[in-house]
Amino acid sequence: MSYKFPVRSIRDVLAAFTAKPSSDRVAVHGWVRTVRMQKQVAFVLVADGSCAQGVQAVVTDPSLVKRISTGASVRLEGALVNSIGGNQKTELKVDNVTLLGAADPEQYPLHKAKLPLEHLRENLHLRTRTRTFTAMCKVRNAAFQGFHHFFQNQDFIHVNTPILTSNDCEGAGESFRVLSPESLTSYSTPPKQQPNNNNQQPHEFFGNPSNLTVSSQLHLESLNAALPRVYTLSPTFRAEKSLSTRHLAEFWMLEAEAAFITDLGQLMDLIEASIRGATDFLVKQSAEDLEVLKGFQDMNRKSSVGAGGGERGLPVNEALEMLGSGGKAFHRVSYTDALVILQKSGKSWVHPVDRWGVSLQSEHERFLAEEWFKGPVFVTDYPSEVKPFYMLDSRDSEGDRGVHGGETVACVDLLVPGIGEVVGGSLREHRLDRLEEKIREKGLGLEGLEWYLDLRRFGTVPHGGYGLGLERYLMAVSGLTNVRDVIPMPRWFGHCKY
Amino acid sequence: MSYKFPVRSIRDVLAAFTAKPSSDRVAVHGWVRTVRMQKQVAFVLVADGSCAQGVQAVVTDPSLVKRISTGASVRLEGALVNSIGGNQKTELKVDNVTLLGAADPEQYPLHKAKLPLEHLRENLHLRTRTRTFTAMCKVRNAAFQGFHHFFQNQDFIHVNTPILTSNDCEGAGESFRVLSPESLTSYSTPPKQQPNNNNQQPHEFFGNPSNLTVSSQLHLESLNAALPRVYTLSPTFRAEKSLSTRHLAEFWMLEAEAAFITDLGQLMDLIEASIRGATDFLVKQSAEDLEVLKGFQDMNRKSSVGAGGGERGLPVNEALEMLGSGGKAFHRVSYTDALVILQKSGKSWVHPVDRWGVSLQSEHERFLAEEWFKGPVFVTDYPSEVKPFYMLDSRDSEGDRGVHGGETVACVDLLVPGIGEVVGGSLREHRLDRLEEKIREKGLGLEGLEWYLDLRRFGTVPHGGYGLGLERYLMAVSGLTNVRDVIPMPRWFGHCKY
Repeated sequence: MSYKFPVRSIRDVLAAFTAKPSSDRVAVHGWVRTVRMQKQVAFVLVADGSCAQGVQAVVTDPSLVKRISTGASVRLEGALVNSIGGNQKTELKVDNVTLLGAADPEQYPLHKAKLPLEHLRENLHLRTRTRTFTAMCKVRNAAFQGFHHFFQNQDFIHVNTPILTSNDCEGAGESFRVLSPESLTSYSTPPKQQPNNNNQQPHEFFGNPSNLTVSSQLHLESLNAALPRVYTLSPTFRAEKSLSTRHLAEFWMLEAEAAFITDLGQLMDLIEASIRGATDFLVKQSAEDLEVLKGFQDMNRKSSVGAGGGERGLPVNEALEMLGSGGKAFHRVSYTDALVILQKSGKSWVHPVDRWGVSLQSEHERFLAEEWFKGPVFVTDYPSEVKPFYMLDSRDSEGDRGVHGGETVACVDLLVPGIGEVVGGSLREHRLDRLEEKIREKGLGLEGLEWYLDLRRFGTVPHGGYGLGLERYLMAVSGLTNVRDVIPMPRWFGHCKY
Repeated sequence: MSYKFPVRSIRDVLAAFTAKPSSDRVAVHGWVRTVRMQKQVAFVLVADGSCAQGVQAVVTDPSLVKRISTGASVRLEGALVNSIGGNQKTELKVDNVTLLGAADPEQYPLHKAKLPLEHLRENLHLRTRTRTFTAMCKVRNAAFQGFHHFFQNQDFIHVNTPILTSNDCEGAGESFRVLSPESLTSYSTPPKQQPNNNNQQPHEFFGNPSNLTVSSQLHLESLNAALPRVYTLSPTFRAEKSLSTRHLAEFWMLEAEAAFITDLGQLMDLIEASIRGATDFLVKQSAEDLEVLKGFQDMNRKSSVGAGGGERGLPVNEALEMLGSGGKAFHRVSYTDALVILQKSGKSWVHPVDRWGVSLQSEHERFLAEEWFKGPVFVTDYPSEVKPFYMLDSRDSEGDRGVHGGETVACVDLLVPGIGEVVGGSLREHRLDRLEEKIREKGLGLEGLEWYLDLRRFGTVPHGGYGLGLERYLMAVSGLTNVRDVIPMPRWFGHCKY
């Protein structure tokens, strides 16, 4: 393809000069990071997100930089020269300055050099201009592409599962409802006052109530019943009233589903390989941006007294090493064995671990990953009663995974130091009769699930899959400790700006 | 990376044999497409979506294929041999058959060989098993990857714009509302009956009403005000009561936004290059699947009397040629010149074109693309009054694009034969004062748009962008004429299955 985008980025301009120094005039476009005025000369640092440093522009006629301040957009023309000293190898000797858009220092919310993250969250629409959030966006892009790269290379098909669903069996009150304006009117108007509403039922745009998806899994299983390797990167929604630093109402999940696997070990291998593949890709593509985030993390760790290693996040370098292909194999332990570790730990737990069958809480997960195994750990074979209906019983799965204890299912959670649970997955119950039993045991109805049961009724196959919280993963590799900072426009309880 | 998915696909098994014929036993897994029983031998065609043909299995002991019928899932073991004659180069001499999941011919909805698309739409959860829908999913995957490939190579950053938005300025009644279960209760309960509701306002989960996005553009512009090249592939929603074959309530858009461009020609170049880049990628990666879809189209065109070329879709080969890098340059014409062409065409229009300023309707778009230009055509510089508030006036843009007529904006629609409008884009008004004027002229309020105006207040830059309807594009390249058939789980008025 001969197409080339017509405006050169600062990175391209600098790279061309580095490859072949030339005194030709060049033009750069970008936003002003800083202006240092001296009597005879002004130094303007301009960035366009294409490289972390931007370009240092030297303006020998300071009158040219009138009204140019942090946040202003400019076009600068001049010649590049090798600079002597300083952080930059190259600087731009400017002979022409065009102010594209001013940014009044009195009003511009990002005028100050060091801004608290809270302040930036109040200015979501502008915060990508900061070095940290430029880097975050680029790391996010590279992570998404990394997962695509891994799965495409393994012949998985990327599919789009629906966002709107009539299915609510997993949501259990945490699903958002979706209504057309007319539906909402019919809900908020007493039926008697509505004309032409003979059956007194509220009008539904789709005929039946519809929700925002809480997981793509069931739909992904439908596609997996035809395409043995599928995955999706998709937005997911929970109407949870959480204000924690780890939960969003709108977040992105990577979900993958693979047919013909019968051993939970095969699923763990896939999970581990996908994370390592994406991380290797990320490290290769976004090294410079990861350095920016690492620097930001170092600065914060020095300046604040965090509430323990977890709250301050894992050092970026450690996370990348752990999750990339150079890291040690992820540990694997059964729930039952993990429970014994927790019981013998001598720790006093807020949530007791005195009984086989208790759910593992964040404090337990962190202890296992951070203090006991000191690395990512797969915890497998949880008690059936704390897991959803669709999981295969451990006894029906293959692979030796140590002690299982009571009634357990062939499932796995991946716990990562500093973050907690990043992945949840399982083999799926693929036999019709047993699946129906499980649905009834959980007290759920079969209505609305007939389509899902059909997948077992006609040509069912053993299969399994997992979901990875992309924002959780991004917290691990970016060192950013608040989930609201790893997505451009976070939405959480009470907050949906713009 | 040394990881390899543990279950070999039929394609891999066949490719290994083709590369190095061997009498070693192999195992294949998949779903039965057809079974032909003869006295001494049974022929079982098995597919797993990895290659269009699947593998022909020859079972010399017909008793082994008991209960095996179309739709059943099987594991077959045996040795591959070169076949003599037939469609297949290779066949599997089976010595062991495992029925993984039966599919009772009396009940299996996809048992018959040729099924109408309407019937398959009633069985969305199973239809991916058919050759046509397997091919569609893989073409869809390749098209998505093709756009990623193009934009990543051009140093565009893929960003995630929000699905939930408090912004409704574009939706104008076509936005879905999103409510938590509690919010919906508060809407449907008269305020007086609600405890603790002093201000009589319905409870909103986010504090303010929130909607499903109808376009990522405004949010994308926010990110573009820091990263000069951004794009997103994102689900988009319209609460339109449409039952047409071209509209969905949930569909996917490619949206791209580029900073520092000032000439609409630069935007058209980008649109054209992205489509050609994605199409070239698609043709390379999915040649076999495109052949399947072409075959399906040919069969339908022979068997049915379509309502003109448009309704039956453009032949797949023509579409791929037109949209790939081998095709002729897309035509470019201004709205004003196009209107003259329509007026002089001698056609009798349902919607008259007697006045400068009328909107172009589907009949006009199709005439221009299919009969006049006989190829993709960019129509530029529409009257301001028929376009949204954020577009730059033509007189403020660069580039010579012929006669503009009255008050026009620097916008562009791309019309494709057989499909109609596939892309809409424009340069954006980047000056604060003029943008405020335009908002007022359209009778809109500035409230809720302050964040968007901030992008013009602080470091504004000239920029432009476009949105491409991915399902429209997929209709063009797949030959499928109903938009419900180019997305796995279509949602439209009255329909949200599963």
